[in-house]
Amino acid sequence: MDQHQTYMRRALNLACKALGRTSPNPAVGAVIVRDDQVVGEGYHPAAGEPHAEIFALRDAGDQAAGADIYVTLEPCSHQGRTGPCADALIAAGIRRVFIGTIDPNPQVSGRGVKRLQAAGIEVYKGICEAECQKLIAPFAWHLQHKTPLTLYKAAMTFDGQLATNTGDSRWVSGEQSRARVHQLRNQVDAIMVGVGTVLADDPQLTTRIAQGGGRDPLRVVVDSHLRIPLESRIVCQKSAATTLIATTGQASASKIEQLQKAGCDLVILPERDSQVSLPALWAELGRRNIQSLLLEGGRTLAAAALQCGLINRLQLYLAPKLVGGTGLSGLFAGEGCRLMKDALELENLNVEQVGEDLLLSAEVKRCLPD
Amino acid sequence: MDQHQTYMRRALNLACKALGRTSPNPAVGAVIVRDDQVVGEGYHPAAGEPHAEIFALRDAGDQAAGADIYVTLEPCSHQGRTGPCADALIAAGIRRVFIGTIDPNPQVSGRGVKRLQAAGIEVYKGICEAECQKLIAPFAWHLQHKTPLTLYKAAMTFDGQLATNTGDSRWVSGEQSRARVHQLRNQVDAIMVGVGTVLADDPQLTTRIAQGGGRDPLRVVVDSHLRIPLESRIVCQKSAATTLIATTGQASASKIEQLQKAGCDLVILPERDSQVSLPALWAELGRRNIQSLLLEGGRTLAAAALQCGLINRLQLYLAPKLVGGTGLSGLFAGEGCRLMKDALELENLNVEQVGEDLLLSAEVKRCLPD
Repeated sequence: MDQHQTYMRRALNLACKALGRTSPNPAVGAVIVRDDQVVGEGYHPAAGEPHAEIFALRDAGDQAAGADIYVTLEPCSHQGRTGPCADALIAAGIRRVFIGTIDPNPQVSGRGVKRLQAAGIEVYKGICEAECQKLIAPFAWHLQHKTPLTLYKAAMTFDGQLATNTGDSRWVSGEQSRARVHQLRNQVDAIMVGVGTVLADDPQLTTRIAQGGGRDPLRVVVDSHLRIPLESRIVCQKSAATTLIATTGQASASKIEQLQKAGCDLVILPERDSQVSLPALWAELGRRNIQSLLLEGGRTLAAAALQCGLINRLQLYLAPKLVGGTGLSGLFAGEGCRLMKDALELENLNVEQVGEDLLLSAEVKRCLPD
Repeated sequence: MDQHQTYMRRALNLACKALGRTSPNPAVGAVIVRDDQVVGEGYHPAAGEPHAEIFALRDAGDQAAGADIYVTLEPCSHQGRTGPCADALIAAGIRRVFIGTIDPNPQVSGRGVKRLQAAGIEVYKGICEAECQKLIAPFAWHLQHKTPLTLYKAAMTFDGQLATNTGDSRWVSGEQSRARVHQLRNQVDAIMVGVGTVLADDPQLTTRIAQGGGRDPLRVVVDSHLRIPLESRIVCQKSAATTLIATTGQASASKIEQLQKAGCDLVILPERDSQVSLPALWAELGRRNIQSLLLEGGRTLAAAALQCGLINRLQLYLAPKLVGGTGLSGLFAGEGCRLMKDALELENLNVEQVGEDLLLSAEVKRCLPD
């Protein structure tokens, strides 16, 4: 790995600290280097706060003059809360700018680079480009589609079971895998379950990280007929994050009022086969600047989301065990494809060992026609 | 990798040429090296033929005197068809003997080494030991348990499906994975299916290898009530290998006779819940010197074999596709464990990319109480 990649990776790591906290902005990290020494670091911590470059410049102080900056995303050229970052870099006397990836917004893409170059600054693009694009994938997706980039996460035994025939599923995956899920919750804007999962498991859906520093994402419950119990944990528990319940006009007004009194946010959405229209829900989440969504089940909701072409990625924790039986097998309930040749293709497979489990990641190649 | 490992790997590759052809003997390979040059090679091609060392000595001729030999398994010290290999090595003037693993048979284990050492030959043990033990695992298992080492192979989509809801399963795995299965058939003593698979798919269960050189293993069909059609391919087709049909006393005598006339081998076994007793069948296969068995399905037979503790290993081809639905999901039909904590543990997980698929291999850690 050359030094440019080393510094860009450092900028990437900085950016990751604020994943799930920057919407509607992307996560960005920046590192200022002078004479092979890091003299300034920064990342964009949250919407409304200064951009990464500004924090890095503040950190570097006088040292910024004549130094290089590594920034995961093209510096902005538009008037934000702290002025265009490109101008700030010019004013600070930055000599060279190394950029991970260009701004995906076609209306501003390339403008920051031009502004820097016009000021005589050398600009190098595409350092760790794939990783930098991956970092802002939720931002880029949301920008283009106005819906959240959606990851479906599930845990399955080696023989394809989500639970035993008696319904027992505690636990399919190992301790390290379950800890990893909390890290994931900490990095997304929202998590979602169907009401069936609430009724079956009464989950908290909070971020519990051993080393602390976690933050609960928005919790979304899809509950077309408002069956959620008022005493369920997701309604009663203390959490800085909101529980948003997506329902339909079929929901009883008094139940809506009770849930609102308990602190929940309710949204009434159009119906589709007597259920919440998922495309309408995804669009609503997009309007609320939810860029990244973690779908945690159950299988019925996942099947409906897949059918609507709303699932972008999968994370499958495969546990090295066999339970046998066909009680709760397969990641998706419902009908599915008629023919194997019509299966939805996956790409960019990745395998990682997490504790005793295998974590298989993949992206959905194309979406089923709706 | 040092040179000793390089030569032992060459001996391992030689041995693999005869996998599935040596029962009741193990597969063994040998390489003779003199002045850093391979001067002789050999492997045990089949029961009744000379051992690997003899072929290697014949190949080396005069060059064997003062040379080293690498042999995957301890040379024998007992009177076989071509005399004890240890004596042949001594007579040929071999200087040093490098051994992969010691003979697993406790009655002869270590005797070959002693005989060589008594003759003043330097003996080194444990070169590529894990791979050499893996090579003879079916032999060692059969020696101890008198049953075949059993591998269950299946192909599943990423979402845990063996077929679509309509039953379509052509094809779950890709071309390269399916070619790999034929290579596997070429290396085992027998393959097995339940009659349900014959009725559903009418498979050939032959070894079809593009580059030729394949050999059909014994085909075993578990058919408790002799439902197999006389016109099924497995009965009618031309194959050098036998089709063995395992049935019970419930089978009609006339059907038995018809199948025998068609060239099938029939075995009547004890019943267990009106089905062929699988432990009795495995013991029968053991008596027939079947050391390695590839179980190809279906899920009902696999579940019964798992329940009886008869499955040692799994090979799961995971295809990067989603079909949705719960038509035929999970590797095992039936009841399975009641609780997740009682799941059968797997160990020695291995992941390999085969074409577009992932091949996940694992070994069953312990067997369910029968």
